[in-house]
Amino acid sequence: MAAPSSCIRSHLVQNKGLKRIFSGIQPTGIPHLGNYLGAITSWVTLQEKCSSVLYSIVDLHSLTVPRNPDVLRTGILDITAVLLACGINPQKCLLFQQSQVPEHSELGWILGCFTSMSRLQHFPQWKIKNTSQMNEGTAGLLTYPVLQAADILLYKSTHVPIGEDQVLHLELTQDLARRFNKKYGEFFPVPRSILSATKRVRSLRDPTSKMSKSDNQALATVFLTDSPEDIKLKFRKAVTDFTSEITYDPENRPGVSNLVTIHSAITGLSQEEVVHQSTGLHTDRYKTIVAEAVIEKFAPIRNEFKRLKEDIPYLEKVLRTGAEKAKELAGPVYWEIKKLVGLL
Amino acid sequence: MAAPSSCIRSHLVQNKGLKRIFSGIQPTGIPHLGNYLGAITSWVTLQEKCSSVLYSIVDLHSLTVPRNPDVLRTGILDITAVLLACGINPQKCLLFQQSQVPEHSELGWILGCFTSMSRLQHFPQWKIKNTSQMNEGTAGLLTYPVLQAADILLYKSTHVPIGEDQVLHLELTQDLARRFNKKYGEFFPVPRSILSATKRVRSLRDPTSKMSKSDNQALATVFLTDSPEDIKLKFRKAVTDFTSEITYDPENRPGVSNLVTIHSAITGLSQEEVVHQSTGLHTDRYKTIVAEAVIEKFAPIRNEFKRLKEDIPYLEKVLRTGAEKAKELAGPVYWEIKKLVGLL
Repeated sequence: MAAPSSCIRSHLVQNKGLKRIFSGIQPTGIPHLGNYLGAITSWVTLQEKCSSVLYSIVDLHSLTVPRNPDVLRTGILDITAVLLACGINPQKCLLFQQSQVPEHSELGWILGCFTSMSRLQHFPQWKIKNTSQMNEGTAGLLTYPVLQAADILLYKSTHVPIGEDQVLHLELTQDLARRFNKKYGEFFPVPRSILSATKRVRSLRDPTSKMSKSDNQALATVFLTDSPEDIKLKFRKAVTDFTSEITYDPENRPGVSNLVTIHSAITGLSQEEVVHQSTGLHTDRYKTIVAEAVIEKFAPIRNEFKRLKEDIPYLEKVLRTGAEKAKELAGPVYWEIKKLVGLL
Repeated sequence: MAAPSSCIRSHLVQNKGLKRIFSGIQPTGIPHLGNYLGAITSWVTLQEKCSSVLYSIVDLHSLTVPRNPDVLRTGILDITAVLLACGINPQKCLLFQQSQVPEHSELGWILGCFTSMSRLQHFPQWKIKNTSQMNEGTAGLLTYPVLQAADILLYKSTHVPIGEDQVLHLELTQDLARRFNKKYGEFFPVPRSILSATKRVRSLRDPTSKMSKSDNQALATVFLTDSPEDIKLKFRKAVTDFTSEITYDPENRPGVSNLVTIHSAITGLSQEEVVHQSTGLHTDRYKTIVAEAVIEKFAPIRNEFKRLKEDIPYLEKVLRTGAEKAKELAGPVYWEIKKLVGLL
């Protein structure tokens, strides 16, 4: 079930300096195809490439938007089951819930005392969400990039798989690491990014915007646990254009190019290869082919997800064990930080 | 060594609903006369009036301004020794270091997700300090009222002794308690203020501004551990006016009125009584009388402080024991909060 290594940019295949990888995912519903191809497959690959990998279910981040407690509780178990079903292996990485390791919030506070407000106010995410919430954005919403920095630095992580929309966030983390090191002496590695090579997956109903969990159009988003019928329907209804040929031309033909992106990432073939294979096909037929590839890929994930969801004690055990191991790593680092800062 | 109960507004003397008191002090140097009369004497009184009292050395708050780690470390032990020397009794209250109880930062994060940024930006402290730091104020500086709310609510505190400059802060705490209760069901008591009845002590060099640890004028501030000679000198040089009579008229005679305030609070007599006692005295002679009252009050504190500072293991033990007991209280409350929010 591991994603093809082509999903990760080539410099990583050499495992250079990959000492510790950290990444996080919010427990805000079943991931979609874009999450799967952009993040989860990379996570599965990376657990094979590095001996110390931490994947955190960042529930504290999810509180930056109002949540129903029952939905959040279910979301935490759902995402655990999905990740395991996708091939995340707790023997090869630490899978844990952020809020179970107090040091995340604790270091978040300390780093917040190093982060200028004006910098946080320039994050595009803040500008967009604060505006959409009629300037009633909360301190949590504004300062979550600081908590992200704490998530990463708490484990002295060296590498962080991120999407392109997280580049600014990682820069803040890097700056905080440097600033801390300058004041207290060399302590944090300055973490580097691992950018996923998978192009961003777009909405099947509006290929100019990215695929999103919260899209209003039900057919726009393919979820990891969708039934084969739903996946078939969503691809059949995918917006393309009036040309029947299969080409990769994101600028002029975003719809069909999105299908090529998905097809290439799902099969592990290059975009050129899938385009070449599809010579002479009509887009309608191509949609079916892509849908079938996705269905085939998702079938075992969906089955395993269903099985795991029946076994809540197992999911809880995975999270408990993961948190214990994460605490073992975080504790001594945070203890050192407290000593350096003067709290001990 | 307990302050006279007149220091606390009368409704408190009846102990009505005083279920749990919380207060904090920053470990940022030896307290001055104003801190002593405004907060510390109230603390000593309150530990006798309520069976559950928590006093926290809020080291995390002190990080909102850049600190030298060694100075901070020393400051934590100094303030512990000062408080014990002033009569804070670890058998009657919990005295502990905020950063030793992770739940403060953890709850701080959760409450930050309920606090609108626009509200925080209206706190006068933020406006003043952010301006003085050339708009480079940090997230820590802006959001510390949220951490204060967490400090208080974490123990389901019912009462908080505060100075007048903390009224806005307590209002935020009360609002957060109400907002949380509204969303998740009745959980937090809405904490009430205990306002110290002692008038604010003013600078001896400029009676229009309050006495401050960081005053540039060395003679403006009387510290708890000042030598008798220093105290005498500072009062002798106290700025008054050209009238020699002793009256209480803060508006027109701030200097001499400040001396009356201090004299009254130190002796436990009313302002009228000390003014009456001082009929016919010249301000120069009155300064000596006030200085002597302060010296007499501070002498045992200073001796005890010196003794305690030699006994670091004891100070550390007090803080360790306090933190353990505070954790025992905070743990179950935060566990409930996590359950309510949906993190468990």
